[in-house]
Amino acid sequence: MSSQKKFIVAIVGATGAVGEQILRLLEERDFPIERLKLLASARSAGKRVVFRGIEHVIEEAKPESFQDVEIALFSAGGDISKVLAPIAAAAGVVCIDNTNAFRMDPDTPLVVPEVNLDKINEHKGIIANPNCSTIQLVTALKPLQDKFGISRIVVSTYQAVSGAGNQATEELLRQSKAVLDNEDFVPDILPSASLPVKHQIAFNAIPQIDKFTDNGFTLEEMKMVRETKKILGDDTIKVNATCVRIPVVRGHSESVYVELKNDFELIDVRQLLANAPGVVLVDDPTHQQYPLAVDSTGKNDVFVGRVRKDLDHPRGLSMWIVSDNLLKGAAWNAVQIAEYIALEQ
Amino acid sequence: MSSQKKFIVAIVGATGAVGEQILRLLEERDFPIERLKLLASARSAGKRVVFRGIEHVIEEAKPESFQDVEIALFSAGGDISKVLAPIAAAAGVVCIDNTNAFRMDPDTPLVVPEVNLDKINEHKGIIANPNCSTIQLVTALKPLQDKFGISRIVVSTYQAVSGAGNQATEELLRQSKAVLDNEDFVPDILPSASLPVKHQIAFNAIPQIDKFTDNGFTLEEMKMVRETKKILGDDTIKVNATCVRIPVVRGHSESVYVELKNDFELIDVRQLLANAPGVVLVDDPTHQQYPLAVDSTGKNDVFVGRVRKDLDHPRGLSMWIVSDNLLKGAAWNAVQIAEYIALEQ
Repeated sequence: MSSQKKFIVAIVGATGAVGEQILRLLEERDFPIERLKLLASARSAGKRVVFRGIEHVIEEAKPESFQDVEIALFSAGGDISKVLAPIAAAAGVVCIDNTNAFRMDPDTPLVVPEVNLDKINEHKGIIANPNCSTIQLVTALKPLQDKFGISRIVVSTYQAVSGAGNQATEELLRQSKAVLDNEDFVPDILPSASLPVKHQIAFNAIPQIDKFTDNGFTLEEMKMVRETKKILGDDTIKVNATCVRIPVVRGHSESVYVELKNDFELIDVRQLLANAPGVVLVDDPTHQQYPLAVDSTGKNDVFVGRVRKDLDHPRGLSMWIVSDNLLKGAAWNAVQIAEYIALEQ
Repeated sequence: MSSQKKFIVAIVGATGAVGEQILRLLEERDFPIERLKLLASARSAGKRVVFRGIEHVIEEAKPESFQDVEIALFSAGGDISKVLAPIAAAAGVVCIDNTNAFRMDPDTPLVVPEVNLDKINEHKGIIANPNCSTIQLVTALKPLQDKFGISRIVVSTYQAVSGAGNQATEELLRQSKAVLDNEDFVPDILPSASLPVKHQIAFNAIPQIDKFTDNGFTLEEMKMVRETKKILGDDTIKVNATCVRIPVVRGHSESVYVELKNDFELIDVRQLLANAPGVVLVDDPTHQQYPLAVDSTGKNDVFVGRVRKDLDHPRGLSMWIVSDNLLKGAAWNAVQIAEYIALEQ
């Protein structure tokens, strides 16, 4: 990107699955950086990371780390964001937070640039990056909402393990090898490092992401429900979500049933999706072409296919939405926001 | 099982993924067999299989193979069933067909014993065994239909590769090893041996099972739509299906959203499921207990969990249904039908 001004940028959680991708994107996009501060939890402090050919030592993220910072990207877990982002924001830093800490805070804009870029300017120091599963869903649905209105969404996810961090990816690969080699193993990360019961992920599907809430939905499912309504700016949209972890390393897939408010022609829906910003339509049943998690890896776009009319409901529509959960689902969406902030200053 | 009479039984497709399980179940259930004829395509003729400690040579299935047979279980593909089942039926054989050949034939009962056992007696020589994904769905939903009525179903599947046969299972294991070893590979079976384009299944999710139909749904999805209506005996039930192959060896999982016709209490739904024949309720969010594909392997039951009320629709209900696709989804359902036939004679 081109910008007159260069910025002092902090990355909090630089060694995590998302932090690694943020660094790669900042390099690739030639983000205007005057100075880069790499921060992390005490556990990762002292590690070294190369950025633009220069070795950076990771420092422990502390309240005083943000004194001279202008833009900070947080992806070191909700607890760190909750403590440090308000301190940084109070010191004048624009914080882009990739955790769940502030997403539903009414004072914090929850932004997907293709969907509600206009909300960014309402920020009071913190801009929240939505949940990975939500980002790809709303990016694909926004053009349909604008044209036809959306009354309900029923979504089932097929989520990659990298959404649970690098340790979860390592667990999937290790377990898969153990199963293939007919060796014993003990699950020790998934469904979540912070939960007591662990389940096998290799050659399995785990219908739990994050902890359960009192209504029987998991927190991940509730994130999809609440964040979708907030980002699309319509609390009346009915959202039903089932979030499932499957043995995929990168790339979340979603089976999405949508009911529109107005009648539609399939050809118009396809046209809207084909022209939507950040969306690539991959939908050619004749040649068995549809989005696949492995094809989405390393790409910033949201891929949509299997678009078809419901057989019974005149305004019902099914589709299959795939995106790299570490990129559009996390790092790329955050860097898009950072680029907007940089261009505005 | 106990029966006075013993039967001459033929298994067509004895070396396939389902045929192997049928043989195992006939042994385990002590099915009253006078003589067993193992049949298969010309390709498998001459292979040897041990049943009840005795080696049987597999013969090529031909029209004359059924002369003295009383009960025949077919699972050698639709083309073989289409040709041979009517010939066998005309010769007085009761044919239990595990393929798609006769399922929607109005003269052929499509039977899940827990759901519509009464239909068996309407048979004219052929009884169809439903599609694997449909069987576990209707087994779980039948008690809800009886008590509350069902107006619509939105289902997304997470299907195991063994549903595409032993070659597909071998491909998943081979590909997974190649990915882990960072070696090249060329997909050569999935999504379907009979389709031209192949996709990676290891660490991926393929939103295609069987060929596409003109309406944009796959044949597998249309099987779920049509068979569900036929088995539940209600053409007015709206069914929307998305069928997805995931890297699991055995055990299909399904994310199911159901709208009931009448108001319900969650406690009553749970009670109905807990008491339903062939259903096991595994639903304890507090202890992170829910059905898992790997836990279903080798078991005849349909496991249901993640039962929760929709947040917006007063009669909406979500659940997660898992069963071994080779057992209740195929071999066990067929053997249940065979047992009923044997007891009636």
